[in-house]
Amino acid sequence: MALSVEKTSSGREYKVKDLSQADFGRLEIELAEVEMPGLMSCRTEFGPSQPFKGARITGSLHMTIQTAVLIETLTALGAEVRWCSCNIFSTQDHAAAAIARDSAAVFAWKGETLQEYWWCTERALDWGPGGGPDLIVDDGGDATLLIHEGVKAEEIYEKTGKLPDPASTDNAEFQIVLTIIRDGLKTDPKRYHKMKERLVGVSEETTTGVKRLYQMQINGTLLFPAINVNDSVTKSKFDNLYGCRHSLPDGLMRATDVMIAGKVAVVCGYGDVGKGCAAALKQAGARVIVTEIDPICALQALMEGIPLLTLEDVVSEADIFVTTTGNKDIIMVDHMRKMKNNAIVCNIGHFDNEIDMLGLETYPGVKRITIKPQTDRWVFPETNTGIIILAEGRLMNLGCATGHPSFVMSCSFTNQVIAQLELWNERTTGKYEKKVYVLPKHLDEKVAALHLSKLGAKLTKLTKEQADYISVPVEGPYKPAHYRY
Amino acid sequence: MALSVEKTSSGREYKVKDLSQADFGRLEIELAEVEMPGLMSCRTEFGPSQPFKGARITGSLHMTIQTAVLIETLTALGAEVRWCSCNIFSTQDHAAAAIARDSAAVFAWKGETLQEYWWCTERALDWGPGGGPDLIVDDGGDATLLIHEGVKAEEIYEKTGKLPDPASTDNAEFQIVLTIIRDGLKTDPKRYHKMKERLVGVSEETTTGVKRLYQMQINGTLLFPAINVNDSVTKSKFDNLYGCRHSLPDGLMRATDVMIAGKVAVVCGYGDVGKGCAAALKQAGARVIVTEIDPICALQALMEGIPLLTLEDVVSEADIFVTTTGNKDIIMVDHMRKMKNNAIVCNIGHFDNEIDMLGLETYPGVKRITIKPQTDRWVFPETNTGIIILAEGRLMNLGCATGHPSFVMSCSFTNQVIAQLELWNERTTGKYEKKVYVLPKHLDEKVAALHLSKLGAKLTKLTKEQADYISVPVEGPYKPAHYRY
Amino acid sequence: MALSVEKTSSGREYKVKDLSQADFGRLEIELAEVEMPGLMSCRTEFGPSQPFKGARITGSLHMTIQTAVLIETLTALGAEVRWCSCNIFSTQDHAAAAIARDSAAVFAWKGETLQEYWWCTERALDWGPGGGPDLIVDDGGDATLLIHEGVKAEEIYEKTGKLPDPASTDNAEFQIVLTIIRDGLKTDPKRYHKMKERLVGVSEETTTGVKRLYQMQINGTLLFPAINVNDSVTKSKFDNLYGCRHSLPDGLMRATDVMIAGKVAVVCGYGDVGKGCAAALKQAGARVIVTEIDPICALQALMEGIPLLTLEDVVSEADIFVTTTGNKDIIMVDHMRKMKNNAIVCNIGHFDNEIDMLGLETYPGVKRITIKPQTDRWVFPETNTGIIILAEGRLMNLGCATGHPSFVMSCSFTNQVIAQLELWNERTTGKYEKKVYVLPKHLDEKVAALHLSKLGAKLTKLTKEQADYISVPVEGPYKPAHYRY
Amino acid sequence: MALSVEKTSSGREYKVKDLSQADFGRLEIELAEVEMPGLMSCRTEFGPSQPFKGARITGSLHMTIQTAVLIETLTALGAEVRWCSCNIFSTQDHAAAAIARDSAAVFAWKGETLQEYWWCTERALDWGPGGGPDLIVDDGGDATLLIHEGVKAEEIYEKTGKLPDPASTDNAEFQIVLTIIRDGLKTDPKRYHKMKERLVGVSEETTTGVKRLYQMQINGTLLFPAINVNDSVTKSKFDNLYGCRHSLPDGLMRATDVMIAGKVAVVCGYGDVGKGCAAALKQAGARVIVTEIDPICALQALMEGIPLLTLEDVVSEADIFVTTTGNKDIIMVDHMRKMKNNAIVCNIGHFDNEIDMLGLETYPGVKRITIKPQTDRWVFPETNTGIIILAEGRLMNLGCATGHPSFVMSCSFTNQVIAQLELWNERTTGKYEKKVYVLPKHLDEKVAALHLSKLGAKLTKLTKEQADYISVPVEGPYKPAHYRY
Repeated sequence: MALSVEKTSSGREYKVKDLSQADFGRLEIELAEVEMPGLMSCRTEFGPSQPFKGARITGSLHMTIQTAVLIETLTALGAEVRWCSCNIFSTQDHAAAAIARDSAAVFAWKGETLQEYWWCTERALDWGPGGGPDLIVDDGGDATLLIHEGVKAEEIYEKTGKLPDPASTDNAEFQIVLTIIRDGLKTDPKRYHKMKERLVGVSEETTTGVKRLYQMQINGTLLFPAINVNDSVTKSKFDNLYGCRHSLPDGLMRATDVMIAGKVAVVCGYGDVGKGCAAALKQAGARVIVTEIDPICALQALMEGIPLLTLEDVVSEADIFVTTTGNKDIIMVDHMRKMKNNAIVCNIGHFDNEIDMLGLETYPGVKRITIKPQTDRWVFPETNTGIIILAEGRLMNLGCATGHPSFVMSCSFTNQVIAQLELWNERTTGKYEKKVYVLPKHLDEKVAALHLSKLGAKLTKLTKEQADYISVPVEGPYKPAHYRY
Repeated sequence: MALSVEKTSSGREYKVKDLSQADFGRLEIELAEVEMPGLMSCRTEFGPSQPFKGARITGSLHMTIQTAVLIETLTALGAEVRWCSCNIFSTQDHAAAAIARDSAAVFAWKGETLQEYWWCTERALDWGPGGGPDLIVDDGGDATLLIHEGVKAEEIYEKTGKLPDPASTDNAEFQIVLTIIRDGLKTDPKRYHKMKERLVGVSEETTTGVKRLYQMQINGTLLFPAINVNDSVTKSKFDNLYGCRHSLPDGLMRATDVMIAGKVAVVCGYGDVGKGCAAALKQAGARVIVTEIDPICALQALMEGIPLLTLEDVVSEADIFVTTTGNKDIIMVDHMRKMKNNAIVCNIGHFDNEIDMLGLETYPGVKRITIKPQTDRWVFPETNTGIIILAEGRLMNLGCATGHPSFVMSCSFTNQVIAQLELWNERTTGKYEKKVYVLPKHLDEKVAALHLSKLGAKLTKLTKEQADYISVPVEGPYKPAHYRY
Repeated sequence: MALSVEKTSSGREYKVKDLSQADFGRLEIELAEVEMPGLMSCRTEFGPSQPFKGARITGSLHMTIQTAVLIETLTALGAEVRWCSCNIFSTQDHAAAAIARDSAAVFAWKGETLQEYWWCTERALDWGPGGGPDLIVDDGGDATLLIHEGVKAEEIYEKTGKLPDPASTDNAEFQIVLTIIRDGLKTDPKRYHKMKERLVGVSEETTTGVKRLYQMQINGTLLFPAINVNDSVTKSKFDNLYGCRHSLPDGLMRATDVMIAGKVAVVCGYGDVGKGCAAALKQAGARVIVTEIDPICALQALMEGIPLLTLEDVVSEADIFVTTTGNKDIIMVDHMRKMKNNAIVCNIGHFDNEIDMLGLETYPGVKRITIKPQTDRWVFPETNTGIIILAEGRLMNLGCATGHPSFVMSCSFTNQVIAQLELWNERTTGKYEKKVYVLPKHLDEKVAALHLSKLGAKLTKLTKEQADYISVPVEGPYKPAHYRY
Repeated sequence: MALSVEKTSSGREYKVKDLSQADFGRLEIELAEVEMPGLMSCRTEFGPSQPFKGARITGSLHMTIQTAVLIETLTALGAEVRWCSCNIFSTQDHAAAAIARDSAAVFAWKGETLQEYWWCTERALDWGPGGGPDLIVDDGGDATLLIHEGVKAEEIYEKTGKLPDPASTDNAEFQIVLTIIRDGLKTDPKRYHKMKERLVGVSEETTTGVKRLYQMQINGTLLFPAINVNDSVTKSKFDNLYGCRHSLPDGLMRATDVMIAGKVAVVCGYGDVGKGCAAALKQAGARVIVTEIDPICALQALMEGIPLLTLEDVVSEADIFVTTTGNKDIIMVDHMRKMKNNAIVCNIGHFDNEIDMLGLETYPGVKRITIKPQTDRWVFPETNTGIIILAEGRLMNLGCATGHPSFVMSCSFTNQVIAQLELWNERTTGKYEKKVYVLPKHLDEKVAALHLSKLGAKLTKLTKEQADYISVPVEGPYKPAHYRY
């Protein structure tokens, strides 16, 4: 695929796999809208006043059908939008096509190379000579990273005249980032500074991106305000947990058709994502085993009847391995060599370094047999047995299936819309400093409330006496900040 | 697709969608073999003696990857095989391609018309002038039906000279059957008699087909011995139950990506299939409601915490409807009109008459919007709201996903191989009359035993004293015939 | 407790722990009646016609609150009743008191010695000089056994003048049986023949008793007709399964207050009882492991995500052991020695020979510490660690708690009433020979139907067309005899 | 029971039901010790250094077997202890007896009147003329309340000479509190000031007590430092959740023997306690319905497949009602009148005002029938139908069963020991002000870790590289403060 930007008849830029899939994408977007009451409520509540009038929003977030409904909510509220995916396999091409044709500038397709991936990210941030976006919707923090690295490089360049050197790192992906920045510096040595200047803030979707932001806050290097959407209760305790409970078996089934019942399945990590994965596998009839580093999460697994062991204890007996840790180097090639024939190895954490793909690819004599896209059998020469790797070690629910379903993404994305509105509305008030914030409890409760009636649920109302008795307002918020749900 | 038979280079007949998918099919067949220990054990145990040497086997059973492993087990034991699918949507084209290229005569593709479907069935039964097959592997009983109807028509024709009249029935599909028989009669008025003569017997896969066989036994019209494979414990209590528990959510997800958690799901029927479906939906977080006619099954649902209501009670509140009854006229167009917008309606029973598709198609002003193949939205003119029908009312797990996974099909199909062997080995002994038989308990237990070690399981052995105490042989069978598991 | 019969003011015999508990018993019986719709329906339907007028019924079945409702249903239908418990620990003394005072001759108390147990059984069968009962309600078959052994001994005595010799057996309990028969022979050498003569038949409650009956049928030694109530679907698939799912954790909690969550629990046997136990433990958060001899049941466990191992594999790691096999010698003293300190060992099968109590009691140096009645800690001298044995190896749910709850017992006992009615009504027609029978399907379905409305359930009705399509009557029965539910 | 203090031979004060139950209590305490690894580890780790040497600890916390192990852990670390229960029904008399005889001054018995209850609380706080305790272990905050109210009254009395007037409140229980304070004022007008002076701090066990503390902190009236033990993760996410999952069905079964399967059960409130209750009921086969005021908790219920309705919607159809809200006026007499005959109504929240007992007791013509202690049937005159109230509306798991099991209480109580140590060790450092604190994350993780090996669990260890990658120390703590588990 040649990396050149295309334009719609109305002149909007895009780069997608196949614009002719736009009609199919539109049909699925319409189905999704019915399942996303939070986003549709935002359109009803805020659409008329056009609060995003004049705002440029760049998103770096899986370009799926659900994200399409998010994008069109942002545009319905008046924003101009440019978008890329935050994972090379997570785009649904018909969603990208529909958005590119109808609503926003999209640069995303399923199966990008890393080179292409960062080209797309750059395109999404590129609003022309006048600088970058006003707001960023980020997932995993790659858009935010690119700006921070860009600013850093420009500062060094200004002081020392030195360009960033891609050869200075072993990390193949970071080499690409440095190359992009280096090439940009040559044409405009203030490009990322201009972006930073204009930027009102970022709202970050996921655990991994949030970790990066807090790290920058601690180091004092954060360049603009950030809202941590991940830690809204209606995000992390729903999307991470119930989303994965849905999409993990979906990914396994679409990729391998394997019968989960009767199998031994190892889930590495028992955070929200791990809890969702373990629940799904257990309910499908697998014997689930969990590995954990945190004794509290470990004890939770045990209380649910799930054995807690180390990967070494079970590596040669398990049939399915899932990494959910957000950490690196969880399943190494040395583990993989000891696995049963056709053991399935996959990752549902944000980054692809939980599974030692490099170790696998460079293992002497290893043979890769592609069963179908995102489903590969790797055969070890000594034993002539193989393991099955899903989505090349990347997010298997988005690589092998369609990610989380609309309803739960409506919770997450309603938080995103609210966070974006908050940043934009307060852009001149100084309310938000260069720090990481979470949304206030009452907004979190509001997001939940917007999703109840779709499910036919009826809330009980506190009387004034009851509210006073437990010292909360009748209308909420109902819980202290530290409440864990 | 023109209905003409093609031939491989070796001269074997076939008609499939795309022979170039054979390599992909072969890769998936190889994965499936690892998951099908029962079938692979049959190859090891019986392959060397070639027991099916000289036997012609016709199969009418979903042409999937798993069925491919069954077919190649039959051929590995010496049989010659011709195959068709028993459902217009259930073929996996890559499986059909691999088998057509490598192993047997296949007439099957995903998305046949009914006309094409019966053409395929006829092809599979057509072994040339020398008559038909020695054995039939049937699923739902269509191959058996065609022969029985053929013989009946030939007898009438012989006596009265009358040809069957397709116009004598309202049932569109049965019109096609009569047409085929009529046209056949013209060329060979003894065709089905010759088939009947040669036929050693049939082994039937599923509840629906078994019901037909018992009915014919009661009426005294059964033309050859039949083995009821469905009621092997290792079939009905595994395939029907655990197979559907796996493949129902798989079908829902692939067709609609709907979030099951939080939804109200109605399962019509709480037999083995209904139990599997209800369990899957409940575990995924749906509020499940069951409808039943049988008070015992009804009480079982209640003991599992599942409300028992009538369809009328819940038709306007539920989000997902699944029919599993094996009966007809379960969800009528009048029900569908009252459903919520985008309610999902699907069937996982063998035949497509559980859902009133005719009523829907002929509803005045109704509009069909195909989201993608096997996923249609039907919009009613009065309300402008729509419902989503999966697989046009046919088996949604095979129409919208890939059916049951390999491991559980290995149980079912090992019973098939054993049944076929039994019929063939006893073809001259008179052991089997024109009746319906089930496999003896010890073979049922053997099928189970063949699947245990794959799962790392260890059976306990009875001592002689213990076996005597409970009056069973040390090696089994362990249970009386009436035991329900 | 002196073994002398007492009499109520109205002259009815009894022997219970404490008649003053009758009021308390009555209150709980009244609660139970609300939960036992099947029995109450029998009173309404059959009470007016007094079908049991003139019938003497002896019952040998756990003398609990639920059994009290059964007894008073039999008396409400006109029967005279004498009753004993079929287990030394299973009597609820307040239930026995209420029945003794108000309704029937009862000989039962919690904590009988074996000597006392058989004395009670003899009393329940002793209807005075005119012979024994017309009908027996048996559970485990001890009343039936006593008559069969008595008849056998009388025949030998008549032929040879030889009295039975208790010293001829090692089995302590059988020594008592022989002693009773011997002593009876001295006073009336035709006592059991007279009983046999009068007896119309027996209805048997449980798996173990049924096994004995079929064995006698095979051997041709069965002396009167028997109805196998256990294998009514509404008995074995409800009482055995859902009853144990309820009462196993109840027994564990009342006996030991142990936290089940987090523990490793081994269930020996995965029949209906084992399935109920495993489900309960799993749901409470235990890591459950099953042992099985039957490969089909074994594969069922695996499909539910339960590991299948041998007792030897897990004996030193598990915290809770439950036997459910109906076989003997399952957990031997040699296993117990290897268990963790305070491992809990219990049995929920009918007889107490699943756990090697004799081996434990006679283990050199072993020390028994009674925590409370039916909860003993046995300490091994080598390790000074102990295990906890519940109910001395007998049915722990009845020994340590109150057995199954009323609702599920209503299903079982409605079958009993129907079986007793059937035997009595057909007593002169010759319908029942000296064989074992099960109740016909339509009665089984009726039992279920009687329990649905209490749970607010609504059955769907077949149309005539639907009934014809599946070849069943509109009113049922709906399933073939071999259907497994 | 006459309210006079008794003394052991060694001179320690006590008032219990029956000291002769001490041996039985001791046996159960020894069993519990094996199940409470956290407390036993504290004895091993801290026992030798006797950190509580010289400390007087007063506890107001359910006097159960588990609490006995807590008390003896405090004494093993050098403390002197006086104890009362925090609920009139929650004492296990054998536990109280063993502790009274062997370890500490206990004033507690099952079935206290409210008068007796507060007398016991006063006794536990009364350390003689030298003032009160150094430390308080509180559960629900009654000991803390008494001191705060006492100090307040003394201040008024000092300023105005006015004694508190019990007639000034409608609340029967608060009248007793005021009476006690009034009577105390007459003998020592500085009694509670002296207590306050000496007091180092309180550690509070439960949600309700914690709410009171935060309220006092906000009002600025808190008189000494408090550690909120409830919100340690290893308390609230274990005890509240898994403890109730265990003890709710236990209480239901012991009180009523009701079959839970098939019933409709309403859980009011879906916090940690409600989640545990709903899970238990669902797993036992009930159809569970939840009522909630908080939209987030409501949405969680829906994601688990649990319908969310209001009490009004279901009051006449449900069989079992459980309140878990921590609020008041949840089930009113007007609700109760509409319930089905023999509906079970119970509360598992800390206080007894969730159920309108006053409304019930004063309902015209209502009749109370005590089935057995803590199980009453209340019959309404209009309908002559009744409802069953457990534990007179108080904590049913402690009133009708034995409360939470040892293992989970070991988590809670290890937090208590650590909190008490922390307060005591820092008593002179000024680290703790008159505020409410939670324990630091690393101590929370330590509590969990102490409980893992008992369950045979194996934690994974982070490598240094992995720890750096996620920016945590190798040894933890592993999560940010806001993490929700």
